Amino acid sequence: MTHSRPLLGGIELGGTKCVCLLGTGPDDIRFQKAIPTGNDPDATLRCIEHILLDAVSTHGQFRVLGIASFGPVDLTRTSLTYGFITSTPKPGWRNTSVAERLARTFGTPIAFDTDVNGAALAEGRWGAARGLEDFAYITVGTGVGVGLVANGRLVHGFAHPELGHIRIARKAGDDWPGVCLFHGDCVEGLASGVAISARACLPAHQIPADSSVWQLTAHALSQLVHTLVVATAPRRILIGGGVMEARPELLDQIRGELLDSLNAYFDLQSLVGRLDGYLVPPGLGALAGPLGALALAADAAPMAEELSAR
Amino acid sequence: MTHSRPLLGGIELGGTKCVCLLGTGPDDIRFQKAIPTGNDPDATLRCIEHILLDAVSTHGQFRVLGIASFGPVDLTRTSLTYGFITSTPKPGWRNTSVAERLARTFGTPIAFDTDVNGAALAEGRWGAARGLEDFAYITVGTGVGVGLVANGRLVHGFAHPELGHIRIARKAGDDWPGVCLFHGDCVEGLASGVAISARACLPAHQIPADSSVWQLTAHALSQLVHTLVVATAPRRILIGGGVMEARPELLDQIRGELLDSLNAYFDLQSLVGRLDGYLVPPGLGALAGPLGALALAADAAPMAEELSAR
Repeated sequence: MTHSRPLLGGIELGGTKCVCLLGTGPDDIRFQKAIPTGNDPDATLRCIEHILLDAVSTHGQFRVLGIASFGPVDLTRTSLTYGFITSTPKPGWRNTSVAERLARTFGTPIAFDTDVNGAALAEGRWGAARGLEDFAYITVGTGVGVGLVANGRLVHGFAHPELGHIRIARKAGDDWPGVCLFHGDCVEGLASGVAISARACLPAHQIPADSSVWQLTAHALSQLVHTLVVATAPRRILIGGGVMEARPELLDQIRGELLDSLNAYFDLQSLVGRLDGYLVPPGLGALAGPLGALALAADAAPMAEELSAR
Repeated sequence: MTHSRPLLGGIELGGTKCVCLLGTGPDDIRFQKAIPTGNDPDATLRCIEHILLDAVSTHGQFRVLGIASFGPVDLTRTSLTYGFITSTPKPGWRNTSVAERLARTFGTPIAFDTDVNGAALAEGRWGAARGLEDFAYITVGTGVGVGLVANGRLVHGFAHPELGHIRIARKAGDDWPGVCLFHGDCVEGLASGVAISARACLPAHQIPADSSVWQLTAHALSQLVHTLVVATAPRRILIGGGVMEARPELLDQIRGELLDSLNAYFDLQSLVGRLDGYLVPPGLGALAGPLGALALAADAAPMAEELSAR
């Protein structure tokens, strides 16, 4: 047994594609392969198993397997459905056991969490939140997801954070009802990619840059950031995802709305520095997803070592 | 040196009174004395020092001193004003050094945090959140404060949580502007004791039980609970403070508004059980404040032991 960084396995289970990888970190990815996520979870998982077993025969066995999954997932270790994808709208995948099946196939410890939480950990370990014990990671894509790290650890209670579903103060004069099936005008119902298109009656990439939809979207996202600031006072907040990547100008609009909303309640400049260094894009870009799976594995590796040494 | 529970010191610095105590927990309080909080912090702190030094001469030296203070306070250990009460409106107390002064007087390690965070820790150690690693404690009094425990530790980032200051969706038809000097109709601006009296134009204890003010207050507080549920998914949420104590019927109104607001987004029954066992009053009653100071000390004691053993 060497004391170099252990080889880790990762699976990003995404809604459209799954990425399998082996490596120790972003500078040392030894194997990576993506497949489409089919509507038959058994076939998709069998394909993933085949790919990773094959990779192991070339690169050697990994110490821990990290799985960063689309959700919702069951993360309660005492639950009968721990490690399941639960009530997802994705056809075929509702109530699918993922973690236990893969643990049996590979015979290694498993670290299982949401794709958002995985990406948050990866940003903390290798990206734009490196060295921070307390930060938040927001992704604005099809939905709005948040990963929260406090005291150096992911925050989970009876479930993973679902902060996209806060109900917020609306921008004065805006009463569009939003698209969330549960809450209508929660943040996800107002500012997800789906919501943006629905509000503009246009695919998001066709919405003109000067459309009021963007300012209204920025307002809704600023409310999410306002809530995060007063909830856990993160030392930095990362905001990425497909919508932010496609429309980088949104970031400054959100910063402006945030300052209006907080209304100098905190002396942010002295507490966290300039806002453009506080509310920032993620650092890992398109690699955040697959690296999220590796980061979950890396986080669990010390505990796995300890258990195996007993 | 014995291995029994170490003697701890505690100071609850409240806006109206300060409580000094010595003990190891709620079943073993060996000394307790309260004094009014004057407008001269130096005189008040000198009085506290005198009382505790005197108590020590009778009961022996304590291992760690916990200070649970009204706020806002500076909790950043690297800050020049760490351990200060900072921008408080309380006359005379703005920018008062508390932790360092008392550490020098008593020559022991200090655990310094807000009164709300102290009470949260005490509820986790001895009260209605015993055994839980993830819970929230809300106090509704002059203001609205929240203490958050995640993974068994208090959540702090660049500051302590200020979740009373979230901006929320208003109850349909209600456009009363609220009283928060920064945000108008944030939760604190709508549901604190001050806000309730201002809205009703009556002292809170004179507002009739069937006044619409109570339902509107319950709605605002339900939005705070909704946000907590989706933010950190606490395994239990405690809600107390002067307003809740004076009007216990509010609790059921908040539960009802909460169910409407979450709109079955979570299967709460299967995840956390019945709502009346989930959103509950605190367990320690009027002792939560002073015990908060002891809980802060108890939490810091193992680390203090370790440091002194080096």
